Amino acid sequence: MAYASYEHRGVRRVGELRGSSLVPLEGGTELGLDTGPEWLRDAVRDERAQVPVDEVRLLPVVPRPSKVFCVGLNYLGHVTETKRELPTYPVLFPKFDSSLIGAHDDIVLPPESTQVDYEGELAVVIGRAGRRITEADAPHHVLGYTVANDVTMRDFQYRTHQWVQGKAWDACTPIGPYLIPPDGVNLAGAGIRTVLNGEKVQESDLSMLIFPVPRLIATISTFTALRPGDLILTGTPGGVGYRRDPQVFLTAGDRISVEVDGIGTLNNLVTMEQTDQSTQEGGGQ
Amino acid sequence: MAYASYEHRGVRRVGELRGSSLVPLEGGTELGLDTGPEWLRDAVRDERAQVPVDEVRLLPVVPRPSKVFCVGLNYLGHVTETKRELPTYPVLFPKFDSSLIGAHDDIVLPPESTQVDYEGELAVVIGRAGRRITEADAPHHVLGYTVANDVTMRDFQYRTHQWVQGKAWDACTPIGPYLIPPDGVNLAGAGIRTVLNGEKVQESDLSMLIFPVPRLIATISTFTALRPGDLILTGTPGGVGYRRDPQVFLTAGDRISVEVDGIGTLNNLVTMEQTDQSTQEGGGQ
Repeated sequence: MAYASYEHRGVRRVGELRGSSLVPLEGGTELGLDTGPEWLRDAVRDERAQVPVDEVRLLPVVPRPSKVFCVGLNYLGHVTETKRELPTYPVLFPKFDSSLIGAHDDIVLPPESTQVDYEGELAVVIGRAGRRITEADAPHHVLGYTVANDVTMRDFQYRTHQWVQGKAWDACTPIGPYLIPPDGVNLAGAGIRTVLNGEKVQESDLSMLIFPVPRLIATISTFTALRPGDLILTGTPGGVGYRRDPQVFLTAGDRISVEVDGIGTLNNLVTMEQTDQSTQEGGGQ
Repeated sequence: MAYASYEHRGVRRVGELRGSSLVPLEGGTELGLDTGPEWLRDAVRDERAQVPVDEVRLLPVVPRPSKVFCVGLNYLGHVTETKRELPTYPVLFPKFDSSLIGAHDDIVLPPESTQVDYEGELAVVIGRAGRRITEADAPHHVLGYTVANDVTMRDFQYRTHQWVQGKAWDACTPIGPYLIPPDGVNLAGAGIRTVLNGEKVQESDLSMLIFPVPRLIATISTFTALRPGDLILTGTPGGVGYRRDPQVFLTAGDRISVEVDGIGTLNNLVTMEQTDQSTQEGGGQ
């Protein structure tokens, strides 16, 4: 089973994947606060409104999460590459709902940064609210999994010791294409890889996660309640562009994909920002 | 002029302060996304529904901002105390809407932390959306000012090099009591002080801000759009409990107040959390 938030002819819907088509679920405009596991199971499928996937725009799998937590340095290989010691508590930092784009949207390079980098990641979507969730209870709070590219502006990330200004750029973070519920997904041995212009630049598997999903949910919910639709991006393996020799950054015309076995594949074109820099409009989606 | 978000007999309203009473503005339930400067000016005042301030519960001045940015190390004195070098870019980190409490609500100590600390701050409320706002245009985007206590769990803040898990505890951050529009406010020489159980523990003035408000708005809006109701907590002066010798942390029964001249005063009682630690309910407000 797989679900998407999508837009078709200007209308936003939640769809269930059937082969290469989406069947909309009645009563929902996007995955998020109001689409828990019971809703996904019970919502009426509007079979007559089925549309081919290639006729819709896939939205961020959850377009408006109340919180987006990211985890740094959560793969054994990536920790080695950054020459840091093995952590005893996960490195956490935020993105925002405005950071997110769809699985096939363009990653638009902002004119202010010359060091835009990729980070392929597994992402978790929360399905039930909770505070102080135990590791044992954590699976009950997972709605499903998806794929993220935690795109990072390195020249901004390291301007101070806090990272948000390098991580939370509007409309920079592809997430999707689908929400995959946990039943039948075996994360233990699943591979994760990032491919830049046909060359594999990151490859690992989810058994290398230092802090697995239940531990992340327990740690975060100790200090703040998680709500349905909230996202946790679980960290990236070794091979990021900033740590390569020579360094590699995204440039216009690049094709970047992130794949997690059994979960899905992001595929994004990198383009240059066309807008007037002095615009006073609100950004994001 | 001063405005509040408040609750009276279970109904949420936006009120204009008249002496020691609040006159509700018709059509608004809280300051935030829909209450720009024109709305504040033009909304009909429901004079007959005027209520004494001491009969209402003051809510966080903006209960549901889409983003809450905090600034670290932004006073000359506090930077000296932490033995860091003078920054060239502001240290930014997030809180969430769920972090906020009202100006007179209790600060409830979570059982997990033994190092809960105070940080008295000036806060800015955004009134007009914008991305890539210039310093010159920044004042046009300010709805007003208020006061915040950026309560911080030091034992969690320093678990890794990123601070969110020490900063974004649910229901820990008093903000209010009122929104004070910028007309007639002279921030330049305004004093700021924090008083713990009658003893002054922080004192400075806003001329000591390393990054003033227009610079903060320009810096943040470079990477993400600001929306009406968004908050920027501008940083704290020297004198935080963690840096004192001996260290001072908040304990049940403490009274903590934060005052900014011409803007207002927070006054909160510190209490112990009474709830069952294993609750699965959503927290925050």
